[in-house]
Amino acid sequence: MSTVYTHIRRADPGVVDALGAFGVATIHEAQGRTGLLGSALRPIYPGARISGSAITVSVAPADNWMIHVAVEQCRAGDILVVAPTSASDAGYFGELLACSLMARGVRGLIIDAGVRDVRDLTAIGFPVWSRAVHAQGTVKETLGSVNVPVVCGTGLVNPGDVIIADDDGVCVVQRLRAAQVVKDSEAREVKETKVRERLKAGELGLDIYGMRDKLKDRGLTYREQPPEGQEST
Amino acid sequence: MSTVYTHIRRADPGVVDALGAFGVATIHEAQGRTGLLGSALRPIYPGARISGSAITVSVAPADNWMIHVAVEQCRAGDILVVAPTSASDAGYFGELLACSLMARGVRGLIIDAGVRDVRDLTAIGFPVWSRAVHAQGTVKETLGSVNVPVVCGTGLVNPGDVIIADDDGVCVVQRLRAAQVVKDSEAREVKETKVRERLKAGELGLDIYGMRDKLKDRGLTYREQPPEGQEST
Amino acid sequence: MSTVYTHIRRADPGVVDALGAFGVATIHEAQGRTGLLGSALRPIYPGARISGSAITVSVAPADNWMIHVAVEQCRAGDILVVAPTSASDAGYFGELLACSLMARGVRGLIIDAGVRDVRDLTAIGFPVWSRAVHAQGTVKETLGSVNVPVVCGTGLVNPGDVIIADDDGVCVVQRLRAAQVVKDSEAREVKETKVRERLKAGELGLDIYGMRDKLKDRGLTYREQPPEGQEST
Amino acid sequence: MSTVYTHIRRADPGVVDALGAFGVATIHEAQGRTGLLGSALRPIYPGARISGSAITVSVAPADNWMIHVAVEQCRAGDILVVAPTSASDAGYFGELLACSLMARGVRGLIIDAGVRDVRDLTAIGFPVWSRAVHAQGTVKETLGSVNVPVVCGTGLVNPGDVIIADDDGVCVVQRLRAAQVVKDSEAREVKETKVRERLKAGELGLDIYGMRDKLKDRGLTYREQPPEGQEST
Amino acid sequence: MSTVYTHIRRADPGVVDALGAFGVATIHEAQGRTGLLGSALRPIYPGARISGSAITVSVAPADNWMIHVAVEQCRAGDILVVAPTSASDAGYFGELLACSLMARGVRGLIIDAGVRDVRDLTAIGFPVWSRAVHAQGTVKETLGSVNVPVVCGTGLVNPGDVIIADDDGVCVVQRLRAAQVVKDSEAREVKETKVRERLKAGELGLDIYGMRDKLKDRGLTYREQPPEGQEST
Amino acid sequence: MSTVYTHIRRADPGVVDALGAFGVATIHEAQGRTGLLGSALRPIYPGARISGSAITVSVAPADNWMIHVAVEQCRAGDILVVAPTSASDAGYFGELLACSLMARGVRGLIIDAGVRDVRDLTAIGFPVWSRAVHAQGTVKETLGSVNVPVVCGTGLVNPGDVIIADDDGVCVVQRLRAAQVVKDSEAREVKETKVRERLKAGELGLDIYGMRDKLKDRGLTYREQPPEGQEST
Repeated sequence: MSTVYTHIRRADPGVVDALGAFGVATIHEAQGRTGLLGSALRPIYPGARISGSAITVSVAPADNWMIHVAVEQCRAGDILVVAPTSASDAGYFGELLACSLMARGVRGLIIDAGVRDVRDLTAIGFPVWSRAVHAQGTVKETLGSVNVPVVCGTGLVNPGDVIIADDDGVCVVQRLRAAQVVKDSEAREVKETKVRERLKAGELGLDIYGMRDKLKDRGLTYREQPPEGQEST
Repeated sequence: MSTVYTHIRRADPGVVDALGAFGVATIHEAQGRTGLLGSALRPIYPGARISGSAITVSVAPADNWMIHVAVEQCRAGDILVVAPTSASDAGYFGELLACSLMARGVRGLIIDAGVRDVRDLTAIGFPVWSRAVHAQGTVKETLGSVNVPVVCGTGLVNPGDVIIADDDGVCVVQRLRAAQVVKDSEAREVKETKVRERLKAGELGLDIYGMRDKLKDRGLTYREQPPEGQEST
Repeated sequence: MSTVYTHIRRADPGVVDALGAFGVATIHEAQGRTGLLGSALRPIYPGARISGSAITVSVAPADNWMIHVAVEQCRAGDILVVAPTSASDAGYFGELLACSLMARGVRGLIIDAGVRDVRDLTAIGFPVWSRAVHAQGTVKETLGSVNVPVVCGTGLVNPGDVIIADDDGVCVVQRLRAAQVVKDSEAREVKETKVRERLKAGELGLDIYGMRDKLKDRGLTYREQPPEGQEST
Repeated sequence: MSTVYTHIRRADPGVVDALGAFGVATIHEAQGRTGLLGSALRPIYPGARISGSAITVSVAPADNWMIHVAVEQCRAGDILVVAPTSASDAGYFGELLACSLMARGVRGLIIDAGVRDVRDLTAIGFPVWSRAVHAQGTVKETLGSVNVPVVCGTGLVNPGDVIIADDDGVCVVQRLRAAQVVKDSEAREVKETKVRERLKAGELGLDIYGMRDKLKDRGLTYREQPPEGQEST
Repeated sequence: MSTVYTHIRRADPGVVDALGAFGVATIHEAQGRTGLLGSALRPIYPGARISGSAITVSVAPADNWMIHVAVEQCRAGDILVVAPTSASDAGYFGELLACSLMARGVRGLIIDAGVRDVRDLTAIGFPVWSRAVHAQGTVKETLGSVNVPVVCGTGLVNPGDVIIADDDGVCVVQRLRAAQVVKDSEAREVKETKVRERLKAGELGLDIYGMRDKLKDRGLTYREQPPEGQEST
Repeated sequence: MSTVYTHIRRADPGVVDALGAFGVATIHEAQGRTGLLGSALRPIYPGARISGSAITVSVAPADNWMIHVAVEQCRAGDILVVAPTSASDAGYFGELLACSLMARGVRGLIIDAGVRDVRDLTAIGFPVWSRAVHAQGTVKETLGSVNVPVVCGTGLVNPGDVIIADDDGVCVVQRLRAAQVVKDSEAREVKETKVRERLKAGELGLDIYGMRDKLKDRGLTYREQPPEGQEST
């Protein structure tokens, strides 16, 4: 039952990098509000934004053996995505593993569990999105699998999917949809740039988006605040 | 049932600004340990401290339509306070809405839900206190109300109340009590300044506050630690 | 029942300081993966690393009276460790108490509850690890004890134990084991330094740690990813 | 600052009792989806349904002194509503206080904190909705207030409001709206009874509520599941 | 983007029913410790055990429109599996929808959100596993999809997968593996029956499973408890 | 580092049984409000009340090997107390292990993690207090220790301590204090019996406990509720 799938298909590197130019929020919207891994996975330091191809790892609770196995499957431009088979906040990953991944050109780690050595990881600039920070060590006793579909946070990640992560969280884009999502993200950004200028100039979203009629149709009413002591509650 | 109350009464701008000079902890104490919105609402970046008049928004879960409506009700010196009618960690608010609010002089956002674009919000310096950071988009389908009383976090906020927020959380001061709270906060700070100097000089709170007799009356006893192996547990 | 134990035994200052040179993760591993206080206690600002002798305080929920009592028992090189008798996220501790502790040479605070004035604490450089940040004030009505064993987070702390805290969390080392843990931590770091160089040079943990045979024995298999559309799930 | 308000206005007893005939879900809907206290307040045993007039109590964390004060303000048909000023899971209330309340005809307790003696409370049939069950004792040291507005769970409760609680949670109806909510709840039940019969007979909500056209307008499409191995994901 | 897939493939009814004879724990073990939806989904009343074919529904937060759509796709022996696109504890489902599903022979509901009318659902015997119980009503404004893959709790559910749920939680068995899992579950039960008798007769698992040598090899040591006051800690 | 301590000292069986006659709340109060293991450990079915001598087990996350080892150390009248070295909600324990423990006269299980087979455990009447119910299986790969001090929930348990558990949670009584706690619990119950009768007869706690003067001294004031629309807030 424990298998390492090798030679996985990845998205075109140009497409992967192009996705990294957009924020997670933009990409999530561009692909129809799908692909987020939930609000529990948070960056260990602010400001990082990465994109890469997912190498997925299914691990036993508090056992990081398969992460060592997965390192060998990584190449430049990849992101490691780790999910335990039952909930754990143990620190599966630290600075030594980061050195190993950086030597292979891996861009970051997404882990639905804990991480440690965050001071060192911050210093060397290896970004991690995790559920917890915890020094708790792990064992190397139980097998898992590499490059199988995993549920990580609240989303499904397949090997070779494109991962984008920034301060807003983590988003997954299916490999075969990635090129289209680049285009849709670009279109969205163009549109947002125009709206941004109008908003900065003081125009209201109510007018830019033409919301007033729909609001009125639905029954929204405007009233002056009643005099002191007569407020409705 | 969906109403926007306009022309709300606000506290005197001078009073609002005066409150912003104090920390949340000081103001909470000065008004009798009331007004906090709980420990779940956290700033998206450290170091901000704001005060302003509350424009309140009651929104549907994962629906930010009413925030667009509320923008129009804001003016310089206001703070937007958003509470969903049932729990949600969706990202109701991002950089575009912040541009719109900043164009009107709004000082920040308090939201009992999620926010996104936090990298951009940090860059442009628009402070937010939220329950979550999440890229999750919202819809514009269901009406709510603007400038009604809302329960936000663990507290009640009425439109026109004064909001103060810093790294310690968020505090609400009732509009009609605001001037008095400024005075009480000042008095508290004066007192604390004196205590601070004495503490820095090495005096003990036990002596400064005269606690020793009361502790003794209540039955506090001092004993030397027993020898090794005989510690009481 | 409320007792302050005085004149507690502490570890050798040289040993305490030596432990502070290692990270929490290293020390936790060096003493057989024990001593962590769990992932819920987090630093109020990043980058601090401290070691010191525990002065323990058992406090009533939302009552910080005994912290004032405990200050007097602290001396240079100590760390205050506070645990409430039932769960509380109130802000037991702020900048004034920090001034008092700093005047005595105390190195930091570990509290299984809330803290406030975090902006000021950051500015003066007094590090705190806490379960929550909350401006909520506390009372001074109910006695507790100082220098008794306390359960703080998920661990047991005895007075005089050595505390080490950094961005990965908080670890406790039993006083009588502290000298040995320094040696074991040093040995561990020496070993890690060698491994780090090999990992940076591109060697795999699989080979450095000799894992391949054991993985094979346990039944790990390697397979090429099946063609598109035939992936196993 | 600590005040007991006496002689509060209550809703008409007939109205209070009439509300008790409806479920929390019905009443919440009937008053425009407002008034719930959130999903964290749960009954200590299944099957109870009560209605009554709120006697509100603002208490200090882990301090039940004011509950004793509030008992005197209760009369037959009331429900005690207790909210701490900061979060606590301590057991503020047990069987002795229940005996005292039952002697006065009080119908139950809503508490945004902990309760204990649940075996005894179940045996004597005194229903409680609480955030936690915990034997943790409380002190009697700090004053609070009785019959002031309190935020309990996620809602605001004013003294004299009508409380309805069942297995679905707790709902508050403003005193002056209570008679109208009875009528609206009755109307809703009549409507639901008719729908229920049609649903039991096998009709679909899609048809009963006439949803098909709106769904089609919004763009919902129906497709046969693709052949094995060609499912879209 | 909003699609209802019709005519989904289901597992053989005999196989589905056979799985219902085993507990969730047995099936989870029999298929290699996979398929659980996590500990957060709990039954609304104890004692139910069901199996059925999954009709999956992806819904907007606090919007139950698509549940009405999904009912039409259900037939006898199915189980409805509902997952919101972002976290919600709203009460999406109540007794009326249960009547509709029961009229079609649906066996139960799994929902990664809230449910209401639990008193009525208990009375009519319609079992539900949910994340929350909450009276909070939902809207019918935003489309979703029926019979697409959904992440529910911590697991992935495809339409037509077999769901088994009891007091231990919820397990999903892939449609094409279901027949094999029945066999493996049977084998596991046979083995457990024999072990149970030996355990009841007083034999130890240490001996039945032959663990003593392996424990000794790993270094487990047995020591008499030291005399009073000399316990190791 | 992995040790099984044998032949532990236990409290007198008569004392252990005597403690079982009192509730957890009573015992916790009788020993000075200490000894509770927190509100997160809940019974899997209502109504059980047990007392017994603690056999403690420190286990690896999601690894139940040491529970099998611990069974051999149990004898009639014991209670198994299990704590993982890092957080886990896996189902460490099920009906087979319960059969084994029941064959030895063990009275129940306290586990700071998950349990499974709760339907069967309920049927055979083996009571468990746990943090979670989850079918998730565990491995048998990593050693731990038996009869060492463990932090379980929020409390410290030493081997041979007396455990009392009921619907209010779990309490630990130190072995050497157990006889005294029986006496203090009896005294408390005698006192409560008298109070109960007076409360049932309609007397107020305010009078029975003589609180009125102290409340007045502290500044509690009584005021009639102001007329409609003039309520203070």
